[in-house]
Amino acid sequence: VPGADGSGFGIENLPYGVVRRDGGAPRPAIRIGAHALELAPLVDAGLLDLPGLPSDAFAQPTLNRFLELGSDAWSTTRRRLTELLDAGNRELQDATDLVERSLVALAAVEPVLPLAIGDYVDFYASIEHASNIGRMFRPDREPLLPNWRHLPVAYHGRAGTVVVSGTPIQRPCGQRPADGPSEPPSFGPERRLDFELELGFVTGCGPPLGTPIAACAASDYIFGFVLINDWSAREIQRFEYQPLGPFLGKSFATSIAPWIVPLEALAPFRVTGVEQHPPPLDYLRVEDRWALDVELEIALLPSGADAPATVSGTNARGLYWNAAQQLAHATVNGATVRAGDLFASGTISGPQPGSYGSLIELSWNGREPLQLPGGVQRSFLEDGDTVVLRGRSGAYDRGGVSLGEVRGTIVPARCGSRAA
Amino acid sequence: VPGADGSGFGIENLPYGVVRRDGGAPRPAIRIGAHALELAPLVDAGLLDLPGLPSDAFAQPTLNRFLELGSDAWSTTRRRLTELLDAGNRELQDATDLVERSLVALAAVEPVLPLAIGDYVDFYASIEHASNIGRMFRPDREPLLPNWRHLPVAYHGRAGTVVVSGTPIQRPCGQRPADGPSEPPSFGPERRLDFELELGFVTGCGPPLGTPIAACAASDYIFGFVLINDWSAREIQRFEYQPLGPFLGKSFATSIAPWIVPLEALAPFRVTGVEQHPPPLDYLRVEDRWALDVELEIALLPSGADAPATVSGTNARGLYWNAAQQLAHATVNGATVRAGDLFASGTISGPQPGSYGSLIELSWNGREPLQLPGGVQRSFLEDGDTVVLRGRSGAYDRGGVSLGEVRGTIVPARCGSRAA
Repeated sequence: VPGADGSGFGIENLPYGVVRRDGGAPRPAIRIGAHALELAPLVDAGLLDLPGLPSDAFAQPTLNRFLELGSDAWSTTRRRLTELLDAGNRELQDATDLVERSLVALAAVEPVLPLAIGDYVDFYASIEHASNIGRMFRPDREPLLPNWRHLPVAYHGRAGTVVVSGTPIQRPCGQRPADGPSEPPSFGPERRLDFELELGFVTGCGPPLGTPIAACAASDYIFGFVLINDWSAREIQRFEYQPLGPFLGKSFATSIAPWIVPLEALAPFRVTGVEQHPPPLDYLRVEDRWALDVELEIALLPSGADAPATVSGTNARGLYWNAAQQLAHATVNGATVRAGDLFASGTISGPQPGSYGSLIELSWNGREPLQLPGGVQRSFLEDGDTVVLRGRSGAYDRGGVSLGEVRGTIVPARCGSRAA
Repeated sequence: VPGADGSGFGIENLPYGVVRRDGGAPRPAIRIGAHALELAPLVDAGLLDLPGLPSDAFAQPTLNRFLELGSDAWSTTRRRLTELLDAGNRELQDATDLVERSLVALAAVEPVLPLAIGDYVDFYASIEHASNIGRMFRPDREPLLPNWRHLPVAYHGRAGTVVVSGTPIQRPCGQRPADGPSEPPSFGPERRLDFELELGFVTGCGPPLGTPIAACAASDYIFGFVLINDWSAREIQRFEYQPLGPFLGKSFATSIAPWIVPLEALAPFRVTGVEQHPPPLDYLRVEDRWALDVELEIALLPSGADAPATVSGTNARGLYWNAAQQLAHATVNGATVRAGDLFASGTISGPQPGSYGSLIELSWNGREPLQLPGGVQRSFLEDGDTVVLRGRSGAYDRGGVSLGEVRGTIVPARCGSRAA
């Protein structure tokens, strides 16, 4: 496919998504360069006649059916797609009618949410992020709580409000803490709206209820990775979160990138992670290289500005708890995972201020507003602001893969409006 | 239907579930007396030819398709089923073949999970329960945290591990806090396994993302109520829950009763709830009677015992935050609800020790073990113990309705076993 080489979406990547063309039914596709290749027509034409891949695998509105098939089918399909897209292979190239039906410019499709997400779990896996939050809100105590180094802390988010990149993000309304301890909360638009830079993974079907997934078996269950912006309403969260954790401060929206990069595409970028002290319990030990060398960046386009400013950059390899540990932990109590479950890392922050993954850290709880071009300042997000998170592994001219981007623009609150 | 009158499952109730017969496909049914009446055959026979009820509404493995239709379709269907089951109506009675195909003794069917649950939210709506937990774990402070009287505190649970009554509950393994503050946690079977008596509601589709549901509109979205046992691992929960709330301490299993009682069946039992101080914010105010007069009881059959003992009894009408307030709160930030979403009350406790809804309260954190017949004691659940939660509104001989029961037996932990 012309232009694919060196774009980060070359033959080394082939991420999966779901696209809609001309208002038709949404259908699974892979991205190659600036094109989407729909997969159902390839199956219909007999080019994806593979063991373990049923003929309806891609005649679906989501990737879930394909995810249910498991890692052998994922591998077989990827190998075959790589073969079909090889410059030297004529099977697809010569089928010009089929190419016309299946290969379409990204500009001509609408990417939709690629998954029916069963459960959405959000971790707190960056030691730098957890420490920053601890320093900000508990300045007189140890930044990390006693459990933090023993287990990957996590909570369940709202699966039903995960949206695809590009969906406008309406500023939420809710109860905001008063200044004084005996004052009642006020109701209104969130004034401390924030983003969180995260990397998530999507699973196939796990073992039956009651059987955990071993950390060393995680690659059988992890299909791929996706960029996530876990939008956060800091006032709402602060008032509500004791003792049961975040609820409305997070549940109004979570954005994910349209393209899920297969774990196999990230194989060259799997590296040794940070050392863990104390050594984790047996069920959290993993020999494989599970840290991912993914360069991450946050761009902010303030309302009315001409150009986005890069406000932070970090690398996912610094995460303290890796994906295999997250999956082993989430299932150690016997909980099942389903095809399409989403597990997010939590905010990924690096050690320096310019590498933090949220505005609350970048502006240190509003005390040090971000200075943007043109004299613009930001402590938290304003209406009309656009946030773009991007990720990449390796250099694109040497086979690097892009995680694409996840983008969202803040639209004003509508606090009075209700369905009656 | 013979035997239905006075059983709590008479014509006043008609709860919905999903049953499987002879290993066939699970199909929606209503319960009448000790029978299930499958609904798809009634549609096929033309007896449920109703405006707004598509012909495939019950040719489904779950109730979700029916829930998507909304409250008008729910009402119309209920009215028609009431008509068909009236003793004076011959349409169904005279169709003996159809009755034979559709009406089946409960003993001959297996009830399955009736819903594909989108998101599962668990509230903390009983002031007695929240106060008890506060007194136990923060004895030197106000039992209620500052937010408690301003909003119905809640968190998201794991939708994928909600199971139907009767499913064995495997004791979870996990990290348990050490006795000393500087000791590391230990890994092993949970030693403080508990139940929680809850009442939940199931919704249809809400308005689009960004539009909250007004408290006064809740009855358009609430389909019905179901008994819930929110199994809890107190050691795991205690170590993990700061700062993001419960995760593995809850996510191993949540049991629900097989039959969902329509809101319309509970109409005669809607009563005025407790007074709230301070008065709630506007979006949480509701004029309707939203407290439910549902008598609840907890029976415990200890491993090896001959007969269950009733260990607690209370009434759902004492809940501080009602279902309409819960739904208004959960969506006030613009979050959507989907057909099949489940919202649970949180543990329902009354004011006296004999009315508490969890073992941690009944045994006061293990300090005052429950004394059961035969000299048996329980501070927390042991392997082989069976817990049965029951609910009823009104007297059965005067048109009362039963919420049935939710039952589960504890089976031993398997801490070493993992899918590799």
